[in-house]
Amino acid sequence: MAPMTAVGEEMHALVERLYPLCRSITGDGVRATLEIVGEYVPLQVHEVPTGTQVLDWTVPQEWNIRDAYVADSTGRRVVDFAASSLHVLGYSVPVSATMPLAELREHLHTLPEHPAWVPYRTSYYKPEWGFCLAQETLDALPDGDYEVRIDSTLADGHLTYAEHVVPGQVPDEVIVSCHVCHPSLANDNLAGIAVATFLARALARETPYYTYRFIYAPGTIGAITWLARNAERIDRVRHGLVLACAGDRGRLTYKQSRRGDAEIDRVLRHVLSASERPHRVTEFTPYGYDERQYCSPGFDLGVGSLSRTPYAGYPEYHTSADNPAFVSPDAMADTLAVCREAFSVLDRNRRYVNLSPYGEPQLGRRGLYDALGGRSDTRQAQLAMLWVLSMSDGGTGLLDVAERSGLPFDAVATAADALRDAGLIKA
Amino acid sequence: MAPMTAVGEEMHALVERLYPLCRSITGDGVRATLEIVGEYVPLQVHEVPTGTQVLDWTVPQEWNIRDAYVADSTGRRVVDFAASSLHVLGYSVPVSATMPLAELREHLHTLPEHPAWVPYRTSYYKPEWGFCLAQETLDALPDGDYEVRIDSTLADGHLTYAEHVVPGQVPDEVIVSCHVCHPSLANDNLAGIAVATFLARALARETPYYTYRFIYAPGTIGAITWLARNAERIDRVRHGLVLACAGDRGRLTYKQSRRGDAEIDRVLRHVLSASERPHRVTEFTPYGYDERQYCSPGFDLGVGSLSRTPYAGYPEYHTSADNPAFVSPDAMADTLAVCREAFSVLDRNRRYVNLSPYGEPQLGRRGLYDALGGRSDTRQAQLAMLWVLSMSDGGTGLLDVAERSGLPFDAVATAADALRDAGLIKA
Amino acid sequence: MAPMTAVGEEMHALVERLYPLCRSITGDGVRATLEIVGEYVPLQVHEVPTGTQVLDWTVPQEWNIRDAYVADSTGRRVVDFAASSLHVLGYSVPVSATMPLAELREHLHTLPEHPAWVPYRTSYYKPEWGFCLAQETLDALPDGDYEVRIDSTLADGHLTYAEHVVPGQVPDEVIVSCHVCHPSLANDNLAGIAVATFLARALARETPYYTYRFIYAPGTIGAITWLARNAERIDRVRHGLVLACAGDRGRLTYKQSRRGDAEIDRVLRHVLSASERPHRVTEFTPYGYDERQYCSPGFDLGVGSLSRTPYAGYPEYHTSADNPAFVSPDAMADTLAVCREAFSVLDRNRRYVNLSPYGEPQLGRRGLYDALGGRSDTRQAQLAMLWVLSMSDGGTGLLDVAERSGLPFDAVATAADALRDAGLIKA
Repeated sequence: MAPMTAVGEEMHALVERLYPLCRSITGDGVRATLEIVGEYVPLQVHEVPTGTQVLDWTVPQEWNIRDAYVADSTGRRVVDFAASSLHVLGYSVPVSATMPLAELREHLHTLPEHPAWVPYRTSYYKPEWGFCLAQETLDALPDGDYEVRIDSTLADGHLTYAEHVVPGQVPDEVIVSCHVCHPSLANDNLAGIAVATFLARALARETPYYTYRFIYAPGTIGAITWLARNAERIDRVRHGLVLACAGDRGRLTYKQSRRGDAEIDRVLRHVLSASERPHRVTEFTPYGYDERQYCSPGFDLGVGSLSRTPYAGYPEYHTSADNPAFVSPDAMADTLAVCREAFSVLDRNRRYVNLSPYGEPQLGRRGLYDALGGRSDTRQAQLAMLWVLSMSDGGTGLLDVAERSGLPFDAVATAADALRDAGLIKA
Repeated sequence: MAPMTAVGEEMHALVERLYPLCRSITGDGVRATLEIVGEYVPLQVHEVPTGTQVLDWTVPQEWNIRDAYVADSTGRRVVDFAASSLHVLGYSVPVSATMPLAELREHLHTLPEHPAWVPYRTSYYKPEWGFCLAQETLDALPDGDYEVRIDSTLADGHLTYAEHVVPGQVPDEVIVSCHVCHPSLANDNLAGIAVATFLARALARETPYYTYRFIYAPGTIGAITWLARNAERIDRVRHGLVLACAGDRGRLTYKQSRRGDAEIDRVLRHVLSASERPHRVTEFTPYGYDERQYCSPGFDLGVGSLSRTPYAGYPEYHTSADNPAFVSPDAMADTLAVCREAFSVLDRNRRYVNLSPYGEPQLGRRGLYDALGGRSDTRQAQLAMLWVLSMSDGGTGLLDVAERSGLPFDAVATAADALRDAGLIKA
Repeated sequence: MAPMTAVGEEMHALVERLYPLCRSITGDGVRATLEIVGEYVPLQVHEVPTGTQVLDWTVPQEWNIRDAYVADSTGRRVVDFAASSLHVLGYSVPVSATMPLAELREHLHTLPEHPAWVPYRTSYYKPEWGFCLAQETLDALPDGDYEVRIDSTLADGHLTYAEHVVPGQVPDEVIVSCHVCHPSLANDNLAGIAVATFLARALARETPYYTYRFIYAPGTIGAITWLARNAERIDRVRHGLVLACAGDRGRLTYKQSRRGDAEIDRVLRHVLSASERPHRVTEFTPYGYDERQYCSPGFDLGVGSLSRTPYAGYPEYHTSADNPAFVSPDAMADTLAVCREAFSVLDRNRRYVNLSPYGEPQLGRRGLYDALGGRSDTRQAQLAMLWVLSMSDGGTGLLDVAERSGLPFDAVATAADALRDAGLIKA
């Protein structure tokens, strides 16, 4: 548990560093985020100009914000961007005005059902300005005139995203994608970034079978931009995982790809089920995070999504209550552990052909079988070899063998290694 | 409920008008029935001569009956056709004789387990004569001689059936078939006729997608005759429904087509299940009503059968207790409502192709999406659009989308209309 | 029950005759066994020379044994082959020595968890010698020197197996295979031999549809030898059954073929389920008896395995407690009865084509249908005819019809005979 706890604490520290930054789908908050992540894993950062056509979309203007507040007649800031990046409606156009509360109200967003929480709101594609605040803050405001100021710019610039690649033995790729566009939200954004980053570091210490590509991009428009700019790479993407809501204390949830029977789906189902963790596997829905884009019918990639409590499934979702205290080091460490186990299975899930398929090959003379017969205990390793031999028809993978036999994947993969080394099967 | 009740009462009135007529597989009772039905919807009546080869069968001689009775020695009619058409064995040959009760008994049919009820019996293909009566009537007959008279004719003539067509937008047809060969039996015969007739009237008020063909024909030989005479039309029959036992107070029963996964099967399963009515869906069996013929392996049409309590499933079946009081206006109205809903789903169950399948199309700039992001409530209409876009690969119909998404079919179909109008999908 | 009991007693008598013989994978014990079986059914005995290459294996040297014992310092035989063939490790090399108990212990095999039982052990492919004895015998041995003698020979010779063929109407074959290589073990070996033998006798009294080939061969190497020498016959093997552990008092267990949906699998599942016997159907595993070889992926034959308590599933397995008292005449008779019923279904499970598939053929004019219509009771025979007509599309067998209709297989097969005789269907 010690190393797990340690990596959990490291991930939590990263979440805390990133928390104050005002991320959006474009702008300097994303750049600052990627700069910090780049201290952990080297990143290739891409800047895509405003106006670039990406699939059915167009890269929007870049939004940046320096300050924003609502001040009362005494000049006291009753709502202040400096206190939390959530206080401003994302992509607010600049405003500088004084107006009575009644008029201002049309631009204020609250959560009456959680009066102490500040909601998260954006208006990317419709020019608006607004503030988000606690209902109890609003309730305490006396009538009268308020000074309103948003010092933002919305101008031609760039959309920013980054990639990190862990080279594998084959060029076939596994993509791991997380969104980097939410301001001060910890579970919905930062926990996924942290788990992805430490997963990349762990994979870099091995030479995995697949090439693993980590994508840090703004939600929707970022994934669409990546897809638009990587048309030639898509055919190499064999599997993928979207990481989001990766750090709350709820049980793990795996949302299957649109295909539902993609290898990544089978691997995650197997790993979660074999681990005996409380967990949930859900069907694909075309709502949620960027699996929406990767699984759109034209691409239909085998990309699932791993979360703890999923999208919009907890009251703190998209509010100021999704803060660093809401995510736990242990939960992030647990998410990371499942990712590592899943990718370990994925990497070893080969399909073999039995080269001696007529009757059983004589394992004994190859040193693969217990020499003393007649004992009624059957040993797992021998059983695993018999299962691999029996099922290896070229179309059946080791995960199928594990599931059909009920043996641990590890035992099956180890047996396959022994049989391959003995020349009895080949991939 | 008022209009439903009204149409239920209208259907029940039709059942009561038709009830006294002595229908059989041929003869004037069928013609009289079709004449009355013709007052509600225009019918094309077909007369097929005796001796016509129809598939493996031959149209039999036409049977007509004017009078029939058993009279005791005082001349009192103890069994009288005038009191109920059930009293005569269907297709009885003429007889005029006096005989002792012992000899007469061999021609008498009763239901000892229901002593007050008169059974329904026929002998279409073996020349016989006979009477059906209540067991208690028989028990009260003293020994002695009885006058027996059946004034029937069995002669070359015609088999009569009728069609009514509601033209649709496409020539592909849905057939709705009911049998018209049972004499005074209300649920088993007349309720189906009534529901079919009012369904035709309802459809005629719209322009449905499919062309709906209503077939009023004697059971077995009538359906076989229709099939034999419509060989060229069969390829156009996409779906069908046999209506029978449509008016008793039991829950609805849908019997699936021989194929079991025909679109009509999926539609009825969906509509019944979504409606939360108590109901039952059963597997195909080659016994029952004319689905036997439509689903015979040479045709194998997607024709299911909708009943309330199914074929032979109630004690009143094929007895005098299956009278107009046994069927209820509300039950017939309910059967009609399910038919209308099912055909509405069938008519709108198109397969679309997403014309913008790479990533999600930007719904916002087409006015199809809520402009203000970040809200955690997802709206059904938007979700339905995302589902239709995600699933529309040309092979998946809207009913599949509704079932996979768990959304109401209506929401899905409405979303598809909006996407089609925006040029994002096409059928 | 009398004839069943009689055949059960006869099978048990055969088990008792065969029990004392010291069988192994080669040698005179196998020959003596086949000679006795040959008194019941004529056998074709095959002798395959040592050194013959059979698939991936080589026929080993032949092992024969005349005497073996451990004697204490007084000359008393404390372990004696003459008392039980289990006392010697199978394939023991000869030995003649005197040694202290401490040294001898390394060659002694016991079952500490069942101190009164003698285990069964072999060392076919690694030169070894050893004795098997009860733990309590071992515990009673005082320290000191013991004389050890095994009078065995391991020399070039032959592997022996036998076949018996019951000719059928077609050359397509069903193989029934049992192992003949275990020494004094009753359930695991002899019960299967006995059931196979009396099954062959029963089949020989009929002319079955399939040709039935009974294979009596040593486990693993024997089945591999048969497969190697019958390459040209394999394509004719349509179905098969391995019989083992056929006589204990546990419920029947059918282990499915590797294919899992082979016709033999469906037949056994149907027969066991329809019989309402307590039973169990298990998935294929590549461990057990010679189904391992017949189902190896290169052959992948439709061969299942019928046992009572399966392989290694009872504490007496591979011990001296698997003696004639452990198997029961009734259990063997019951296994035999299920085999006979299964083969009867298999033999009659034809696929027919309906020659009159458009609408129902008129059964009445062919004398196949009740002439008096309108009766609400449907008779099984007529229903069975309708089901056969409805399903007979050339791809659906009578077992499918029985399962889909819920009718007894017998009723369905009888209906098919009547329809075939009437020219309405053909195989």
